[in-house]
Amino acid sequence: MYKLSKNDVKFIQSLCHKKHRHAEGMFIAEGVKLVEEIIKSKFILKKIYAIEKWIAPLGINASLVSIITEDDLQRISLLQTPNMVFALVEIPTAPSSIILENKISIMLDGIQDPGNFGTIIRLADWFGIEQIICSKDTVELYNPKTIQSTMGSFVRVNIIYESLVEVLKTTKVPVYGALLSGKSVYSTPQPAEGILLIGSEGKGIGKELLACVNIPITIPRIGGAESLNAGVATGILLSHIVGKGEEGLPKN
Amino acid sequence: MYKLSKNDVKFIQSLCHKKHRHAEGMFIAEGVKLVEEIIKSKFILKKIYAIEKWIAPLGINASLVSIITEDDLQRISLLQTPNMVFALVEIPTAPSSIILENKISIMLDGIQDPGNFGTIIRLADWFGIEQIICSKDTVELYNPKTIQSTMGSFVRVNIIYESLVEVLKTTKVPVYGALLSGKSVYSTPQPAEGILLIGSEGKGIGKELLACVNIPITIPRIGGAESLNAGVATGILLSHIVGKGEEGLPKN
Repeated sequence: MYKLSKNDVKFIQSLCHKKHRHAEGMFIAEGVKLVEEIIKSKFILKKIYAIEKWIAPLGINASLVSIITEDDLQRISLLQTPNMVFALVEIPTAPSSIILENKISIMLDGIQDPGNFGTIIRLADWFGIEQIICSKDTVELYNPKTIQSTMGSFVRVNIIYESLVEVLKTTKVPVYGALLSGKSVYSTPQPAEGILLIGSEGKGIGKELLACVNIPITIPRIGGAESLNAGVATGILLSHIVGKGEEGLPKN
Repeated sequence: MYKLSKNDVKFIQSLCHKKHRHAEGMFIAEGVKLVEEIIKSKFILKKIYAIEKWIAPLGINASLVSIITEDDLQRISLLQTPNMVFALVEIPTAPSSIILENKISIMLDGIQDPGNFGTIIRLADWFGIEQIICSKDTVELYNPKTIQSTMGSFVRVNIIYESLVEVLKTTKVPVYGALLSGKSVYSTPQPAEGILLIGSEGKGIGKELLACVNIPITIPRIGGAESLNAGVATGILLSHIVGKGEEGLPKN
């Protein structure tokens, strides 16, 4: 049984801050499912703290694991109900290239809420979207709340921070902008390639980017609500733009 | 300027607990938009605390309003960023009747997260769904987190807590169960009447209710995520089951 030192706790807590995460090159991921997803992925585990009854999945390097008490897990966990295992994971440094042709990508213009961002990553993974390009003021991927709310999907989606205007300058792929008015998504043909651009919770799509939108699309409103949550709206749009299934008929 | 007393603060804080909310018959709603929605609705305001720069909407009874300092608002607010006005609202006591015929209703089997519940209420409002029937173990509507995350939509949706099995015994309206396998929602014809049954985040639809499902429906998965968030899944399903718009073509 390993006893967490004050320094261990202090170090771990420092990783709640973006500055320290990037200085140390590490982020936090918690819980059985998330750690399993990371083990199966290209991400590199740096350290695992787990309680005794955690069953380590195959393929884990035992030297990375320290068994701690439930009380110690409680001390470091950021979850309301700690879930057996707490991991420190390396922030990848290899730059990712952006490929927009012959696929559907998501672009996020300044999403602020880590829960919404995590939900969108999970949705991207569900619908087989490989790439999310975020404006530089989008909430950080390695924010523990973002990571947790992806439910592990961040390991399968390529997430890149870039100037969106600069990226859009380099491509002719059509940009579908999620707006409160526009063409109904129900009558929008499913494209073979395209970018689904989602604005921030408070401000929507910024002015400069709005000028890059080729096809404004909307979810027609029937009742009284003024807007939809950004994650929910992304889910509905994706289901119409890319949704297909064995029994499903593509819309055109 | 009214100075909040210790008793005021104690009373308000007591309303964070379900037991006290129901003993006092009051719940908390905060922010400019939410209070405006309540004023326009059938809900009865009992008390408003607002800072000086809040502009009271027309139709408000001035005797209900106490002007307080920003510091005092900060003391009672449950929001990270208090938004000018804090209201106490009467919990309605008149029982609502359930009508299932000739409309689409939502049924929730044990949703636990107030954010998910609020999102579903907002979605119902967006898609013109008038009625949500909740199992008795669903999180409480008057939980401040639920109320806030509805963005005011709770005033337009009839929310009823009832034994779902008992309700389903009394009707022949078809029950669409949201499941991880079933008929693709993309090829499900839009019904004129029906119940969309959504299970809880952890456990899905309970066994006894599962036996009442007439049409299991699913959102076909393309990528690697194991599941979708309950609010997001409800949004996608609703957009296919009830979504229509001026430019949209109903699916059959």
